[in-house]
Amino acid sequence: MEQVTDTAVPPMRWNGWGDPAKAKDLPFAVRSLIPLLLGRIKRPDAAAMLEEVRIPASALDAADLDALRDAVGADHVDTSAEARIRHAGGRSTLDLLRRRRHEQAAPDAVVRPASHLEVRAVLDLAVARGIAVIPYGGGTSVVGALDPERGAHRAVISLDLRRLSGLLRFDEVSAEAVLAAGTAGPEAEALLTAHGFELGHYPQSFRYATIGGFAAARSSGQNSAGYGRFDTMVTGIRVATPTGDIELGRSPGTAAGPDLIRVFLGSEGVFGVITEVRVRVHPIPRERVFEAWTFPDFTTGADGLRRVAQQGGGPTVIRLSDEAETAVSLAQVGKIGKALAKGASAITVYEGDDIPARRARTTALLRAAGGTSSGEGAAEDWLEGRFDGPYLRDSLLDAGVFCETLETATTWSNLAELRAAVEDALRTGFSDAGAKSYVMCHVSHVYPTGASLYFTVLAGVRGDQLAAWEPVKARANDAILAAGGTISHHHAVGRDHAPWLAEEIGDTGIRILTAIKREIDPTGILNPGAIIPVPVAEPLA
Amino acid sequence: MEQVTDTAVPPMRWNGWGDPAKAKDLPFAVRSLIPLLLGRIKRPDAAAMLEEVRIPASALDAADLDALRDAVGADHVDTSAEARIRHAGGRSTLDLLRRRRHEQAAPDAVVRPASHLEVRAVLDLAVARGIAVIPYGGGTSVVGALDPERGAHRAVISLDLRRLSGLLRFDEVSAEAVLAAGTAGPEAEALLTAHGFELGHYPQSFRYATIGGFAAARSSGQNSAGYGRFDTMVTGIRVATPTGDIELGRSPGTAAGPDLIRVFLGSEGVFGVITEVRVRVHPIPRERVFEAWTFPDFTTGADGLRRVAQQGGGPTVIRLSDEAETAVSLAQVGKIGKALAKGASAITVYEGDDIPARRARTTALLRAAGGTSSGEGAAEDWLEGRFDGPYLRDSLLDAGVFCETLETATTWSNLAELRAAVEDALRTGFSDAGAKSYVMCHVSHVYPTGASLYFTVLAGVRGDQLAAWEPVKARANDAILAAGGTISHHHAVGRDHAPWLAEEIGDTGIRILTAIKREIDPTGILNPGAIIPVPVAEPLA
Repeated sequence: MEQVTDTAVPPMRWNGWGDPAKAKDLPFAVRSLIPLLLGRIKRPDAAAMLEEVRIPASALDAADLDALRDAVGADHVDTSAEARIRHAGGRSTLDLLRRRRHEQAAPDAVVRPASHLEVRAVLDLAVARGIAVIPYGGGTSVVGALDPERGAHRAVISLDLRRLSGLLRFDEVSAEAVLAAGTAGPEAEALLTAHGFELGHYPQSFRYATIGGFAAARSSGQNSAGYGRFDTMVTGIRVATPTGDIELGRSPGTAAGPDLIRVFLGSEGVFGVITEVRVRVHPIPRERVFEAWTFPDFTTGADGLRRVAQQGGGPTVIRLSDEAETAVSLAQVGKIGKALAKGASAITVYEGDDIPARRARTTALLRAAGGTSSGEGAAEDWLEGRFDGPYLRDSLLDAGVFCETLETATTWSNLAELRAAVEDALRTGFSDAGAKSYVMCHVSHVYPTGASLYFTVLAGVRGDQLAAWEPVKARANDAILAAGGTISHHHAVGRDHAPWLAEEIGDTGIRILTAIKREIDPTGILNPGAIIPVPVAEPLA
Repeated sequence: MEQVTDTAVPPMRWNGWGDPAKAKDLPFAVRSLIPLLLGRIKRPDAAAMLEEVRIPASALDAADLDALRDAVGADHVDTSAEARIRHAGGRSTLDLLRRRRHEQAAPDAVVRPASHLEVRAVLDLAVARGIAVIPYGGGTSVVGALDPERGAHRAVISLDLRRLSGLLRFDEVSAEAVLAAGTAGPEAEALLTAHGFELGHYPQSFRYATIGGFAAARSSGQNSAGYGRFDTMVTGIRVATPTGDIELGRSPGTAAGPDLIRVFLGSEGVFGVITEVRVRVHPIPRERVFEAWTFPDFTTGADGLRRVAQQGGGPTVIRLSDEAETAVSLAQVGKIGKALAKGASAITVYEGDDIPARRARTTALLRAAGGTSSGEGAAEDWLEGRFDGPYLRDSLLDAGVFCETLETATTWSNLAELRAAVEDALRTGFSDAGAKSYVMCHVSHVYPTGASLYFTVLAGVRGDQLAAWEPVKARANDAILAAGGTISHHHAVGRDHAPWLAEEIGDTGIRILTAIKREIDPTGILNPGAIIPVPVAEPLA
């Protein structure tokens, strides 16, 4: 097995996003803009320091801990307050607001297996002892998939999979790699680079999230126009379930019954722990070309993106910001006045072969839709800062500005209606709560038949932001489903979206998920409460 | 709903393939070649005529028939011997050999619903009355998915879905169409052509098979290099299950839990009856360009195809015949002597936009792999005759020559080994049975990480062909799995492959399928014995 020795994964702020060393003050332009958009904002009460946070005593007894230590080694069973708090949830705004409190929930231990067999051993003892298990990769869930929920069990552990790291097999002829599930994005790319290949999967969580997490949550990266969603990159998986192992994926195409890989992709740890993922890779692109575009408005821009997606063979990255997002982005580079008349900006990036022809085709379509090229600069800036959005959220939250994102997808013909419905739900939701808000939207994933919509909402909330957000988010989710969207394009379901998943796939859909759950996790130890919105099993007596 | 009034679907020979008017004598070249390859062949005993076939009396009682007539109308419940015999199975060689017998099994009635609600009504009464239901589309299964198997039930009906036909919705902006599941391939294309669009899905069964059948069996068409497998064309489905309906597919991309569409794709009627399929379509290509290639041998040709598939943006169709298939194809056009030195021939077809650039890229790769262009002729001939292979099988069977096909897929790096293992199993299987055989192979579906292998085997079997084939087929299936292949790339599982599916997906995989089956078809009325190799439910008492 090849491993990255010098880890490429930066540290993660315990109560915010990413590397503490990269935390920034709000840019001047944003600070100036906020009072205009949201009114006067009160700085929030000071957040709890890590050492001030109180968590319940671990519910694991000495026999539990002995069994866990037998399974993974004594060094890899961690009951320290710091480890438990650091594994107490993901990175949604809800999570981060919870991390500011002095009293918090936390898993009873953090357990770090190093192999499929160690995962197997942990699941076996968890079943035998009635301990819930929350699989944990990079910790970047924004939908509550990592909440330390014990269900009806007497204890809950966070199963940190980062030690399952490395390139297990590489097949250059078939352009396939088998990666251990805990391999983080940058580690995977470093390992593949050594062979002249890459995966090319760059979600915003790239620096922290793991290969297994990408699979479990059906991730989609910024290069999806070129290389597809993570779903489509996966050619095989190995999974440890509470009642047995499964290895799937013998060929790129098959008609051997329903595709059971797809039962585990998107299962977010409720059916099993993904320990290995086989992925399609491609040679590192030799060239990269940037071009930004400006459209009169979002509607014409979306029409341009549609034409490009339906024609195929276009850019590797294509994204479109609506007027509100375009204005703020430009504000950040100090052009507020000018910005507000600027329409909707788009980014294209081309990687790989045959770029001049792909660019020529794309240019013709974007021009025909009313677009004007605005050069390379803005597209290069986007690439430079593409993983940094969440740092800005940290700074906004620190300044008392509520900030969160949510996303959906639909067909092209329904895009405008869905966007209007979600924006309206967010605006009226906050306005009913007496808060001014500012809603931005972009399209970042396109398909021949439709596209994603990604919303960022800022709000000037007086009082408890957490309490204010809950009904607004519910209203936005209701609006998504009523307007024909999916409850998530790439953030997944977790616990936060579970009630809406039930509406999206209906009673028969939930019964299918529940039947699978009961069969392969009959005592319900795995990630209780995630995805499936009903209790599915009783714990051991 | 738009419907094709003048049906584009030709009649189907009751005990062979396709339009009886198109049946042909064996070409002279093939007749000359057979004794050389397989030795002297005895003409078989005369096959039973349709009116000579004896089937058991229908097990349905008067109350059953009344209930069925209530559900779909009296005209659409058919207990005639002809209808029952015509629905007694699919079109594998096994099926066709069974059709030659004087005693045959058959469903107890053929029931023809015209809508989702009528399907719903039939399932409800079948559950209540304990009647097994075999969903039936075009009748082209070659894996025993249509056997009139009643399981533990007292009767079995063939649910012929051809009356669920038509274009239910068309969304030009999103390039999506909703087709009723019983719409046959040519009907679907005729309906879409009226809008300037096409589906572009052309499996060999195209003239008969239905949209629902393509979905239920995870079909893959000859244009898969350009437009993908049928799996990837499906963006939504509506299904009637014995315990409720389900409608799936809100957006082209989603992370809303596991992809439940994929639970039904490949389910071959064991979970529910697919009644509507939403598919991605594309504008009718304006241009089509043909080019045939010759390679020194199969290995160099496969390497060429691999390079083209991994580069992307190449032809719409790309196929490669091995030396044995190349020789026989050329023999058919009368060039036997020359043929045997001819290496491996390949076909490319380009449809759509940007053909010169795609062709230039492909040409460079195929040349670098050792290929030589052999002009348009052979590629045009292939297109002309691409649905006609099964007619040749009819003629061979009539002449007493055993002929069957089977197929698999694997990664590029494993392709040669898998091909050798299957060929060896077929050859030694027949030779152990004292029969000479001739095995041909082609690659007809390519992916960046691997490809399909499609085998045609001819054999000079003395005595009972059906009895001779069973152990040879089992040996080939064993060899496929032992060598890392999938039990089917596009023929699916049916009853014939069910035992090997269990080996391919393992005990945990079978438990997942069984759990879903028990939940949504608890009395097991749907297609008993297909896919899942174990009984999963008890019938009503």
